[in-house]
Amino acid sequence: METKIITISREFGSGGRTIGRAVAEKLQIPFYDKELVEQIALGSGFAPTFVEEQVEHSPSRSRFSYAFSHQSVPGVMNGLSTADILWTVQCSVIMDLAEKGPCVIVGRNADYILKDRSDVLDVFIHAPMDFRADRIVRLYGESEKSPEARLNEKDKRRKVNYQHYTGKVWGHANNYDLCLNSSLLGIDTCVDMIVTAARK
Amino acid sequence: METKIITISREFGSGGRTIGRAVAEKLQIPFYDKELVEQIALGSGFAPTFVEEQVEHSPSRSRFSYAFSHQSVPGVMNGLSTADILWTVQCSVIMDLAEKGPCVIVGRNADYILKDRSDVLDVFIHAPMDFRADRIVRLYGESEKSPEARLNEKDKRRKVNYQHYTGKVWGHANNYDLCLNSSLLGIDTCVDMIVTAARK
Repeated sequence: METKIITISREFGSGGRTIGRAVAEKLQIPFYDKELVEQIALGSGFAPTFVEEQVEHSPSRSRFSYAFSHQSVPGVMNGLSTADILWTVQCSVIMDLAEKGPCVIVGRNADYILKDRSDVLDVFIHAPMDFRADRIVRLYGESEKSPEARLNEKDKRRKVNYQHYTGKVWGHANNYDLCLNSSLLGIDTCVDMIVTAARK
Repeated sequence: METKIITISREFGSGGRTIGRAVAEKLQIPFYDKELVEQIALGSGFAPTFVEEQVEHSPSRSRFSYAFSHQSVPGVMNGLSTADILWTVQCSVIMDLAEKGPCVIVGRNADYILKDRSDVLDVFIHAPMDFRADRIVRLYGESEKSPEARLNEKDKRRKVNYQHYTGKVWGHANNYDLCLNSSLLGIDTCVDMIVTAARK
């Protein structure tokens, strides 16, 4: 049985990261989440906290997002926005990691970045709003914003970012091999199904 | 273990009907496909062949689609297009079948029609164009049109019909509990995953 590279895209609060970690443990392959942020930071020169905040933001076209790159390294960044620079480094980091062998990569549009490889299993994890709202309050605590507002904001960012860089609709079944409603199926069943699919 | 009502939506040629039939056999529950057409025909007064051809067509707003209903039963059809009449009967037939207990229903936007029930598992089966093109030539033979043109036409009809009656995007993961790429996973694994999910 041959294990694949597994990309996991997910709605915020759906349990995608937890599922990804468990899949990696079961298959005994590396799990890239925080490591990805660190490598993108290393490759781009930006601080990890800035990278973490930016990688799923809308690719802003504001004066400030350009001004920074122009002023700090004139000529080199060639008028690219910070979002575009991060995207370029992100593609390179993810393609290099995939070259190393089977692994689980969470988020960062890895499904699209690795679309030309034939050894990738693309997964999308989603769940209804009430399930996710309850989950993020339990996991991340209360906030000034309602859980629904936090979810909508995060989902919107991921959606806009995905559409901008891939030209595709985030969350459309055609982009993935396996889409799972974690609320109905439960975390353990999602893990089992991904492991089964990865071994196909 | 409690078995659910299972709706299967599918891209043409992806094997959704074959998968649905196998799931119904494994779970020993009724499989509604042709029977659905017959019941809609019975409820609407149209011939089964006409129903089969129409139920996934775009809801045409042409002069002819109205003219027929106006002229044949004036007053009764109340200006509804034939597509709208079929939709109304289709909703009623599918809701009645679901009332009878666990079953597998293929196509006909059953996921949306049964959206207010909590005992439904919604599945979407899809596959890349080349897999489906090869499959429909093997199953349905050659045609004047290229297999790709036949697939595009069928998919477009299902997409437009779904969007018209549900206001949602056909094939978006959020509409389903389980979306499976039958080309990568294989028919048998798809069947097993649906059976597992139905028993959750």
